Amino acid sequence: MSEPTGARAHDLSLEEKAALTSGADFWTTKSIDRVGIPSLMLTDGPHGLRKQGGDTDHLGLAGSIPATCFPPAVGLSASFDPELAERVGVALGVESAIEDVAVILGPGINIKRSPLCGRNFEYMSEDPIVSGAMGAGLVRGIQSQGVGSSLKHFAANNQETDRLRVSSDVDPRTLREIYLRGFQRVVEDAQPWTIMCSYNRINGVYASEDPWLLTTVLRDEWGFEGIVVSDWGAVNSRVAGVIAGMDLEMPGSSGRTDAEIVAAVQDGSLDEAALDTVVDRLVDLARKAQSRPAASGPLDVDAHHALAREVAGRSIVLLRNEGGILPLQPSTNLAVIGEFARTPRFQGAGSSQINPTRVDTALDEIRALNGADVSFAAGYTIASDADADAAALRDEAVAAASAADVAVVFLGVPAHEESEGFDREHIDLPAAQLELLDAVLAANPNVVVVLSNGGVVALPFADRVPAIVEAWLLGQAGGGGTADVLFGVVNPSGRLAETIPLRIEDTPAFGTFPGEHGHSLYGEGLLVGYRWYDARHLPVAFPFGHGLSYTTFSYGEATASVIDSGDVVVTVPVTNTGAVAGREVVQAYTSLSGSSVQRAPRELKAFASVLIEPGETVQVELRLRRSELAYWDTRVDRWIVESGDYVIDLGSSSRDLHARTTVSVTGDEVVLPVSLGSSFDELLGDPVVGAEFTAVIAEKFGSEGDEMLKMLGNFPVGRLDGFPLPRAELVALVERAQRG
Amino acid sequence: MSEPTGARAHDLSLEEKAALTSGADFWTTKSIDRVGIPSLMLTDGPHGLRKQGGDTDHLGLAGSIPATCFPPAVGLSASFDPELAERVGVALGVESAIEDVAVILGPGINIKRSPLCGRNFEYMSEDPIVSGAMGAGLVRGIQSQGVGSSLKHFAANNQETDRLRVSSDVDPRTLREIYLRGFQRVVEDAQPWTIMCSYNRINGVYASEDPWLLTTVLRDEWGFEGIVVSDWGAVNSRVAGVIAGMDLEMPGSSGRTDAEIVAAVQDGSLDEAALDTVVDRLVDLARKAQSRPAASGPLDVDAHHALAREVAGRSIVLLRNEGGILPLQPSTNLAVIGEFARTPRFQGAGSSQINPTRVDTALDEIRALNGADVSFAAGYTIASDADADAAALRDEAVAAASAADVAVVFLGVPAHEESEGFDREHIDLPAAQLELLDAVLAANPNVVVVLSNGGVVALPFADRVPAIVEAWLLGQAGGGGTADVLFGVVNPSGRLAETIPLRIEDTPAFGTFPGEHGHSLYGEGLLVGYRWYDARHLPVAFPFGHGLSYTTFSYGEATASVIDSGDVVVTVPVTNTGAVAGREVVQAYTSLSGSSVQRAPRELKAFASVLIEPGETVQVELRLRRSELAYWDTRVDRWIVESGDYVIDLGSSSRDLHARTTVSVTGDEVVLPVSLGSSFDELLGDPVVGAEFTAVIAEKFGSEGDEMLKMLGNFPVGRLDGFPLPRAELVALVERAQRG
Repeated sequence: MSEPTGARAHDLSLEEKAALTSGADFWTTKSIDRVGIPSLMLTDGPHGLRKQGGDTDHLGLAGSIPATCFPPAVGLSASFDPELAERVGVALGVESAIEDVAVILGPGINIKRSPLCGRNFEYMSEDPIVSGAMGAGLVRGIQSQGVGSSLKHFAANNQETDRLRVSSDVDPRTLREIYLRGFQRVVEDAQPWTIMCSYNRINGVYASEDPWLLTTVLRDEWGFEGIVVSDWGAVNSRVAGVIAGMDLEMPGSSGRTDAEIVAAVQDGSLDEAALDTVVDRLVDLARKAQSRPAASGPLDVDAHHALAREVAGRSIVLLRNEGGILPLQPSTNLAVIGEFARTPRFQGAGSSQINPTRVDTALDEIRALNGADVSFAAGYTIASDADADAAALRDEAVAAASAADVAVVFLGVPAHEESEGFDREHIDLPAAQLELLDAVLAANPNVVVVLSNGGVVALPFADRVPAIVEAWLLGQAGGGGTADVLFGVVNPSGRLAETIPLRIEDTPAFGTFPGEHGHSLYGEGLLVGYRWYDARHLPVAFPFGHGLSYTTFSYGEATASVIDSGDVVVTVPVTNTGAVAGREVVQAYTSLSGSSVQRAPRELKAFASVLIEPGETVQVELRLRRSELAYWDTRVDRWIVESGDYVIDLGSSSRDLHARTTVSVTGDEVVLPVSLGSSFDELLGDPVVGAEFTAVIAEKFGSEGDEMLKMLGNFPVGRLDGFPLPRAELVALVERAQRG
Repeated sequence: MSEPTGARAHDLSLEEKAALTSGADFWTTKSIDRVGIPSLMLTDGPHGLRKQGGDTDHLGLAGSIPATCFPPAVGLSASFDPELAERVGVALGVESAIEDVAVILGPGINIKRSPLCGRNFEYMSEDPIVSGAMGAGLVRGIQSQGVGSSLKHFAANNQETDRLRVSSDVDPRTLREIYLRGFQRVVEDAQPWTIMCSYNRINGVYASEDPWLLTTVLRDEWGFEGIVVSDWGAVNSRVAGVIAGMDLEMPGSSGRTDAEIVAAVQDGSLDEAALDTVVDRLVDLARKAQSRPAASGPLDVDAHHALAREVAGRSIVLLRNEGGILPLQPSTNLAVIGEFARTPRFQGAGSSQINPTRVDTALDEIRALNGADVSFAAGYTIASDADADAAALRDEAVAAASAADVAVVFLGVPAHEESEGFDREHIDLPAAQLELLDAVLAANPNVVVVLSNGGVVALPFADRVPAIVEAWLLGQAGGGGTADVLFGVVNPSGRLAETIPLRIEDTPAFGTFPGEHGHSLYGEGLLVGYRWYDARHLPVAFPFGHGLSYTTFSYGEATASVIDSGDVVVTVPVTNTGAVAGREVVQAYTSLSGSSVQRAPRELKAFASVLIEPGETVQVELRLRRSELAYWDTRVDRWIVESGDYVIDLGSSSRDLHARTTVSVTGDEVVLPVSLGSSFDELLGDPVVGAEFTAVIAEKFGSEGDEMLKMLGNFPVGRLDGFPLPRAELVALVERAQRG
């Protein structure tokens, strides 16, 4: 590795500066050898390195070198454990460093607005706190190895349909509190080296050329110090991008857009100082990359595979376990049914598709842990074409189930139904799989369903199956992780980072997702995910935060207080009341009754995954940041913490709450200017002239004042000339209020 | 009446022109005697004249002269009969003419976006076709008497909360298809003399100063020929209003805003030609008013009261009638329970509140029709304060019910809960009334519930009460109309112009209504009313269009064809299969499977209220306008009829469909320009270069082309430099496509 460059923008010619702002090819930046600026490699991979071997092709879709495929975000996020994410990040950083990769493109933390988003498997959660905390963990881990991360896709990129042109039309408060908040947390907590701007437009403006997004919010408000890289092909106008703060266009355009930048500087439409700012940031990135310690390869494939297995086990969510059918005892007379047990679906398609170092199958790992014979029947095919052998496959599976004590049935979403690039059309499992399950259940009710899916699926059989294991897409060691949970080698502790709805028609964005004709209206506003189901009192299949364990926990009395920083510290004793060690994911939700603004009935503010031994009681302490209590006030364009008694509910899911405490918070003041546009009600409440105005109303209307105000209280005082005072007197009153 | 003025703007001084653009006082315009321009009186009243007697006060809320109070819009619209609306309009015109009123302020046809809107009782429907057809009927009737109507409140004024400042944030397609479509129909069909612009902003722009709304859409597109008057106090900037086409400010501002206009012309910020256009329209209005034939007073109070009773009977919706408990037989041993039977709530509060010529009570009218003794118990009080005597009142009612064969229980929304000026907080009947009903039901299950309410209410008792009569607010003769329906003097034929939901949480705008901080997001988009419940497959208490009869109807086979005008004519034979004459409201809903745009599962396109004798079969013919089949295409900013086979469902409600037919419609062509921003998929489908481009893809990708396109088909072709062709070749391809 060469010495870090000491170059700055002023050392470079205009052409050199322009050249730095776009890639050399699909995966690398341009070098400027005379000043020691190296070419950097950026590669895909939120859950594993996808570095193309040999020559890169023009789309970057050719085969890549082998790397460990960790559980995609849909799995990892279910661990609700940022420290685990950080360990995965370290491993990703190690693999990147060995391959001399400067920046690995991830994590992706876009909000799961609809279960139909084809790329949900790459994203964390429907909740911004989970997304932000898990994302920050990954970034910390990656960057601890001297490798940059690229937080993506910034921002409001919540669908694949028309993703390069669609405008995410979202109101400012929702944008701040739901869609940007996770990004804000990662920037503030972990300072990623790079952020990847998204393809889409936000309220009509391309993310790749939005100065408000990329400079005002990201840098000025949040303090982001890194560079913004375009999603591959996201650049609409390169010059507008430079002005907005979009530093690096990827892939390169063979010099076309560099020339546009040069021309724009020359004709005065681009201030060269703006270009210099971008260039200095790019040089800073190069210097950071050059400072990476030498990597100590080769890759320890076994160690990383073992980590992948551990994470897979931690990612699994035990949705249901009636009658203690799980964990399985070794030497059970087992039938394993379902092609996914033999041919695992362990990652999604698209830019995140890893070439794994090896792949475990659940079937093999179950056989290994069970010891005794395990029969297998495919039950269905996972080909996308019509299945002519459905009946035969089903009969074979029924026979296997009939002969066994327990049938473990693997069901899941076929790969061709979910991928980067397009959205899902429904959330149903294939009909052939549902028919198979019904047939197996009829033959043997002792069924454990194991699900393989990147986006959530409807579970119409949930009440009829004793156990359901949500095994997502779990990376190359998912088979082992699944077997570990089935046999209790791992006590499951994963939780739903997204609600499993009963029907697609119940979901918040139904009807507006994915929009049409270039616009996607975020009509549900703040009520995304559990916020929607809670506000509308809708039943769900399994609520946000849900996940069972092989042990049980009880909660004691919670206490909360405001500490010097303004944050709220909540403490609750949690006892493992069962016979085996286990992790409880303690979740803290807040509400504020009588709030002056719309709020969801419950909002997650903090969580912790805590390992507790049998009989042990742990004092779980959660810190609720004061900043997370704030709402975005569009009247003053800033975060405002309302004063009041915040209720804090603690529990095992958003709908399984065990302890409640309250904390009194002193909020921020919002002072709005008084004018003739202020309403009667507002003027009556003014600290300076309110009493005087009240007296005027009382004199004019007597006992009918209240009724008048009920109907006219929302009238601006200046709108009805001469009412209730001559205009000049009203103007004088308002001026006195303005003087304070 | 004086000769119609022949004045034009050029006959007037600048000061005179400015003076014409605002009122002289609360209710009248200014006269300019030297050119024969009279002062005109405008008065409130969609369902009756509210003309203040003597001096007008500054708010116009003082007592008004007696006038007939017809059923408010919530009742009238339930008749689903534009001809009945026209007869009411004639009566309103007659009363206005007698009182020398030039313009009566109504009808109000804003869409009922949420049941919580406090002014829903003044509006027609959740559906634009019903709103437009009924509104046009009223306008035709009023204006047939030489009196102008004022169609209001234009536009997207669907809540009372912060109504003078709030911005209705609504996407263009929804605005066109839902919130403007009814206005468009009234303008095109009935050409109201005036339209009243609303208080609110639309997407940030005050309706009173929106040139797009008041000129581009209203006049240029729809051909409106009348004047725009401000809602009382809606003017924000008077000069901006003149520029936008807002002709008349009401009430006057004692000359303040006239002076602003003069100053603006003098300093060049207002083109005097724009003022002249406004003035000429105002003079045209004066001339129309002057052309009214002399009125033949005095008012025939009895005849109009009889009409009010007829309309009230036609407005009632029989929601439920199990076991044929209705109609009541004369001489039944009846108990009438509920204060509303004795103290009717027959209209809403606010600007539409009429001083009626007389008021019938349901109790008196029931007694008159029953003949035999009818007991009465108040059951509850309608005072807004806490009711100390609830138990005693309930006991008395239970005793009356126990002693009777049938108990008719009047329940309803107290007046203080719904009014112009504020929105409702819930849709529940008062707890005391629900408790009363439970107690009565326990004593005597033969209960008929009669509802008095301006907005819909939740009916948690719907399954437990044999009969429910929705009697809305029915005007001064509502008591008689109610008795007529209860005893079968009138066979009920009213239908729900708005869905009755099971819970407020199920309603489309729940969570976004009424918004906060100056914005109300119309997040449900097109899915307003039944469109929402149908799309989400939500159960409702009673669906849109529902209403029972004392007879039964059967539908034969429907046929449909496109006629020369492009409209679709649907014919269906409907037979009265019962023993009494009755009206069936035949409703035609369309759907288009495989539509390229979002559509509700069913959209009402036409309806007819048809009187059918017992045993008679009527060939009901409905005309579905071609223009109503169109959607608003935001890509080309115009209405587009899609080609396809439209399914037409005919039935008695949106969820009680009896006949289906299909009609093939040749639609409009939408040609979008090809560019480098066109997607791969779009270029592949281009008529000129599609085949060539397909060949390129096939050559480059072979058998993997389909998979590539599934992921990248939505990429703009110009975004990835050199892919799949050198940029110059792609540009040439696109240029060939552009040349066509």
